[in-house]
Amino acid sequence: MTGSRRVLVTGARGFLGAYCVPLLAARGFDVVAVTSAPPPPDASGLRWRRCDLLDPTACAALVAVERPTHLLHLAWITAPGVFWSARENMAWLAAGVRLADAFFAATGERAVGLGSCAEYAVSDAPCVEGGTPIEPQTVYGKAKAAMHLALQAAAGARGGSLAWARLFFPYGPGEAAGRFIPDVIRGLRQGEAVACTHGRQVRDFVFAADAAAACVALLEAKQSGAYNVGSGEGVSLREVADLLARKLGADAGLLKFGARKAPSFDPPRIVADIARIRRDTAWAPQVALSDGLARSIEPQRARAPAPTATVQNVPGATG
Amino acid sequence: MTGSRRVLVTGARGFLGAYCVPLLAARGFDVVAVTSAPPPPDASGLRWRRCDLLDPTACAALVAVERPTHLLHLAWITAPGVFWSARENMAWLAAGVRLADAFFAATGERAVGLGSCAEYAVSDAPCVEGGTPIEPQTVYGKAKAAMHLALQAAAGARGGSLAWARLFFPYGPGEAAGRFIPDVIRGLRQGEAVACTHGRQVRDFVFAADAAAACVALLEAKQSGAYNVGSGEGVSLREVADLLARKLGADAGLLKFGARKAPSFDPPRIVADIARIRRDTAWAPQVALSDGLARSIEPQRARAPAPTATVQNVPGATG
Repeated sequence: MTGSRRVLVTGARGFLGAYCVPLLAARGFDVVAVTSAPPPPDASGLRWRRCDLLDPTACAALVAVERPTHLLHLAWITAPGVFWSARENMAWLAAGVRLADAFFAATGERAVGLGSCAEYAVSDAPCVEGGTPIEPQTVYGKAKAAMHLALQAAAGARGGSLAWARLFFPYGPGEAAGRFIPDVIRGLRQGEAVACTHGRQVRDFVFAADAAAACVALLEAKQSGAYNVGSGEGVSLREVADLLARKLGADAGLLKFGARKAPSFDPPRIVADIARIRRDTAWAPQVALSDGLARSIEPQRARAPAPTATVQNVPGATG
Repeated sequence: MTGSRRVLVTGARGFLGAYCVPLLAARGFDVVAVTSAPPPPDASGLRWRRCDLLDPTACAALVAVERPTHLLHLAWITAPGVFWSARENMAWLAAGVRLADAFFAATGERAVGLGSCAEYAVSDAPCVEGGTPIEPQTVYGKAKAAMHLALQAAAGARGGSLAWARLFFPYGPGEAAGRFIPDVIRGLRQGEAVACTHGRQVRDFVFAADAAAACVALLEAKQSGAYNVGSGEGVSLREVADLLARKLGADAGLLKFGARKAPSFDPPRIVADIARIRRDTAWAPQVALSDGLARSIEPQRARAPAPTATVQNVPGATG
C-alpha cells in the first residue's frame, strides 16, 4: 500500500484490464496503464501510456522510462473466433518475451501474466494446477503456455517472482460482441434467432470483476506458480442461454441449438479447481452466475471504462 | 533426395551444426548454413549466410530471401557455465519465436528444433517423452521448453510439421573448452590436477556425430513431437574421467573428485529413453562411449569444420 509499488498494466483498455486498473489504484499502486489505443476519456488521475508493445523499441523504452516494480501483463490478440489459431499469437508471444525480459532485467520484482484454461489437456475432471497436464491443443493455448515458461525464465534469470493466472471464461459488462453471452443477449433482445452450437459444452464462467480481483490478489501475493481463475463451477452454454432468456423475458425458442457447427476444438467440459488461489490469497469469487448475468443485461454503466475492440478473451466461450 | 528441399541450418558453425551440415548435404538437401561468425575456410559447395538471428530485421529478411522448406534450428546461447541462467536465453527465445513464425508463415514445411534434457523434471528413471513431466529447473531449460511450445504454435498456425530433439550430453571432437570432457582431456594431457565435483552424477553421453544424425533423421521424418537424442545409457562422470585417463595413459590421481562444488542444479541421474526415436526413424546410436572417447582424444582432423566459440551445449556436462 506504499507509493513505491509501480505497476505496468498492459491491455489496460481491454475487457479485464478495464476492471483491473481501478482496483489496482484502489490498492495503492502507482498505476501505469498501457494501451495501444487512445486513453479513455475518463482517464483522470491515472497515468496512461500509449504504446505498441509489438514494437520492440517502444516496449524497451516504456520499461526503461517507467521503471515499474510490478507487471500485470494482459495484452494479447483476443479477436473473437480468430485468436484461437491466428499467427498474431506469435507476435504477442515475441512481444511478451521481450517485455518479461526487459521488466525483470530492469526494476521488476513481481509479475502476473494472464494464462488460459486452453493450456490444459482436455479433462472431464476440474483442471488442477500441477495436476492436469499442460497439453494445449490450439495455437493460442500453446503460445500462452510458452509465455508462462518465458516469464518463468525471465524471472529466474533475475530472481524475480511470478504468478500465472489461468483464466477460464470471463463474462460481464464490457464483453465484446462475437462472444457467446453478448451475442445471445443481443439476439434475444432484438427478437432474432440466435444460431448456437449444441450447447451442451460445460464451461466455468467467472464474472470479469471477480477475475480482475483475482489478478490483483495474485500481484500482491508472494507465491510463485500457476493459479486457476474461475468460479469453480461448471454450467452448460444451454443453461446460460436459457437463464438469459428468462432474465430478458425473451422467447427461449429464439435459441437455435445445433444450428451452428461446433468449432474443431470444443471440449465437453472445462471447469476450474480453484482451491489453490483460495488457499494462497484472500480472493474468492463474489458474484454468482445469476447475478453476473443480470448485470450483463443491464445498460452499460460507468463502473468500467468503455470496452475497446481488443478485449481479453478465452477459448471456447463462443457458442 | 530432390533438389526442392532447402534447409536453413542455424548455429551451423556450432558443435552440433558442424556435424549436421555435411550430413544434410549428403542427404541431398540444398543447405543454407547460417552463422553469425565468418563462414569456415572449407566452405566450398555450401551456401553460407552470415546473419545475426538476434536482429529481427535480419532474421525476417533471411527467411524471405532463402525461402527454406526445412529448418534445423540449433543456434542458442551455449557459453559453458553461463548458459544455465543467463539473460541471453531470453534473447534467443525471442529470436526463435520470430524465426519459427517467419519460417512457417513463408515457405516452411518441416522444422526440427533443438531441445534439451534440461526440460525434464529430475528423475532417477530414464526420461520418456510424454511420460516424464516437463518441469525445467533452470532458465535455460525453461526457455528451451518455451521454444518448443512456440514452434508448435507457429507450426499449428500454418499446418506445418515439427520435431523437437531433446539433446542429452553430446561430446566428441570439436567440443568446447570449459565443458567436462575437453577439460579433463586437457588437464590429464598437461599433467595438471583436474578439479572435479564428486563425479557420481550419471549422465547420458551421446557422440556428436550420432546426435547430428538423429537431427537429420528427424528432419526427414514425418512425425511430430519430442524425441530424446541420447545413447540410452548412463555413465558417471567419474567413470568417464577414469576411462579418459586410461586411454591417455595418464595418472588417474590427477582427477581430484570433490575438489569443486557441484553446481546448484546437478541431478544425480539424467538418462534418455530412446525408444521413440528408434521406433519412428531408422536412427540408432553408432558410436559406443569407449570409441567416442578414443576419437575425442585424437588430434582434430578435417572431418568436421573447426568449432567456434559458440558451440551447442547442454546442461550438467561440466563436472
